[in-house]
Amino acid sequence: MYTVHVALTDRSYPIYIGERLLARGELLMRHMPQKRAALITDTAVAPLYLDAVANALGSAGVSVTPVVIPCGEQHKDWHTLNAVFDALLANHCERKTTLIALGGGVIGDLTGFAAATYMRGVPFIQLPTTLLAQVDSAVGGKTAINHPRGKNMVGAFYQPLAVIADTTTLGTLPTREVGAGLAEVIKYGLIRDPAFFAWLEQNIDALTARDAGALAYAIQRSCENKAEVVAADEHEESGQRALLNLGHTFGHAIEAGLGYGTWLHGEAVAAGIVIAARVSHHMGLISAADIARIAALLERARLPVTAPDLGVERYLQLMGIDKKVEGGRIHFILLRGIGSAFLTADVPQRALTAALAASVKRD
Amino acid sequence: MYTVHVALTDRSYPIYIGERLLARGELLMRHMPQKRAALITDTAVAPLYLDAVANALGSAGVSVTPVVIPCGEQHKDWHTLNAVFDALLANHCERKTTLIALGGGVIGDLTGFAAATYMRGVPFIQLPTTLLAQVDSAVGGKTAINHPRGKNMVGAFYQPLAVIADTTTLGTLPTREVGAGLAEVIKYGLIRDPAFFAWLEQNIDALTARDAGALAYAIQRSCENKAEVVAADEHEESGQRALLNLGHTFGHAIEAGLGYGTWLHGEAVAAGIVIAARVSHHMGLISAADIARIAALLERARLPVTAPDLGVERYLQLMGIDKKVEGGRIHFILLRGIGSAFLTADVPQRALTAALAASVKRD
Repeated sequence: MYTVHVALTDRSYPIYIGERLLARGELLMRHMPQKRAALITDTAVAPLYLDAVANALGSAGVSVTPVVIPCGEQHKDWHTLNAVFDALLANHCERKTTLIALGGGVIGDLTGFAAATYMRGVPFIQLPTTLLAQVDSAVGGKTAINHPRGKNMVGAFYQPLAVIADTTTLGTLPTREVGAGLAEVIKYGLIRDPAFFAWLEQNIDALTARDAGALAYAIQRSCENKAEVVAADEHEESGQRALLNLGHTFGHAIEAGLGYGTWLHGEAVAAGIVIAARVSHHMGLISAADIARIAALLERARLPVTAPDLGVERYLQLMGIDKKVEGGRIHFILLRGIGSAFLTADVPQRALTAALAASVKRD
Repeated sequence: MYTVHVALTDRSYPIYIGERLLARGELLMRHMPQKRAALITDTAVAPLYLDAVANALGSAGVSVTPVVIPCGEQHKDWHTLNAVFDALLANHCERKTTLIALGGGVIGDLTGFAAATYMRGVPFIQLPTTLLAQVDSAVGGKTAINHPRGKNMVGAFYQPLAVIADTTTLGTLPTREVGAGLAEVIKYGLIRDPAFFAWLEQNIDALTARDAGALAYAIQRSCENKAEVVAADEHEESGQRALLNLGHTFGHAIEAGLGYGTWLHGEAVAAGIVIAARVSHHMGLISAADIARIAALLERARLPVTAPDLGVERYLQLMGIDKKVEGGRIHFILLRGIGSAFLTADVPQRALTAALAASVKRD
């Protein structure tokens, strides 16, 4: 087991990475103020891991309320959140009852927001079971639900007491989900860690083949990168944390434009990263060879590198209500090179339009 | 203008108390990171003060999006909150757009929760226009909406950047609302400030007659008491802040049992305070004369001192899902004397039943 520390003074917490951690009730118990928990998962994860975690907790003397919600990004909404509140209240869950998120990014985001707001905040532990959640969404305290007008528009910064990433769960992950997670892994290399990007180029086939050692290192290095960024800029105020959104402004537009759940989040981010790279190239910041190198790695991770053809106007419209808007101007994360991202509102409309036009797939 | 300081390190803020403050756009501006605001109010307050505040802001160069929601506790729910999010998104409100709550406790609680969760948190200023909001709900950062299974069950701790209490607004307040505010004022005397309680006994007629000087002093002393408690125990962890809930466990049961909006919150708290006093008396903690003194002051403030007859069983059931439950046991705030409250889970069922039976009004 490897431990990454997220340093946030009184809200610091460990990320445990290792095999067969879900069955270790004492690891969970260590971070629970009371022997009561609500275990929140979805219809895809419940048949695989709910019993194992519930039994591990039961053996440790913890009374567990399981809450199973429908699977998919399209259920990350108020309706499902309210179903969770109903279950918590019906089962008399209290201010010191720990909410445990067992699942992928949707479960983690929604459970985290439930924990942030149920009775004005209750203890919260993340048990991410997808690669994307283990390397990104379970770490850093961003929680949210979607709104019909935009993804993650309603949420809170709310840190977990611990993140337990059981790498064994990646064995049951659908192939598309592995790719979606790798999009965020590649992102860390692109924005701030060129050595990691080079390592990924060497090891991408081992990762898609789910080599345990390669995956464990990729998760560790991703969590270390994310922990450093979050410790420096927890609430996305200084601009550092915003860099983690490379490809996300375009990605969110893809997800919203197609309807949430059509493309996986990581797939949309992959296509979005290529658009961001093209914008950077149009502005003379990176070379065509850099774009090719980025697209090649994403393709080897079995990720889409062209975006759906929603029309340039629709893309611009979808991005107009993105959270990263300030003073009416859209902020973009661009690349100065592989391993070096920056935030700017100074993007010519022409570069944007050209990059979008060059990036869409026409059927 | 008198200023009370709420000391919360990097989340410290001022409470300004004085006449005709709503028209002072520069006071608001001082606390806004951007010249954009959404002004959230209800159908009762909008005709009285919306134009004045919007014009004051407009004159200061602030672009204002007004959002008017229906009036009343029964609208402090997800449906109304979502209507606020719709308006914010439709008007492209951003991460640095300030949400301004103009109204009573419902507006403050709901707007505060909207500010806590819109795009994971935006700037927030309270302009309380009721006595209850000026002395209690606008101060301290508790925000929430109601859930069908319980009051304030979904919310967040989220501090405003400033509270601006314009005492002139109390002139337009319905008589019942003045009484409801006085219930919380009297509460401060009861839990921690015996000298203030004695002052209230001397000045209660001036307060119900809305004497400006008396009201300003009562608001100032209430805010000073609340600020001290909140600074010592912001997140209601040490037990100090919980004392502010004297009468509230019973009060919430009354509100939920009758349906939110039937009794005003302060009215329910008044009857709840008398029940808490009776429980304290049954446990040998205060004298019958103390109960009489408390009830007399509440009655002079034109507040109910008997509770609706929902049946003892129904009261216990309604309290079973209260937020102040820990390890399955209900925590109560009781009195050791006038000016001295304490928190305990050690209340004999008999004392509870007897106090409830003695406190209900049979029609």
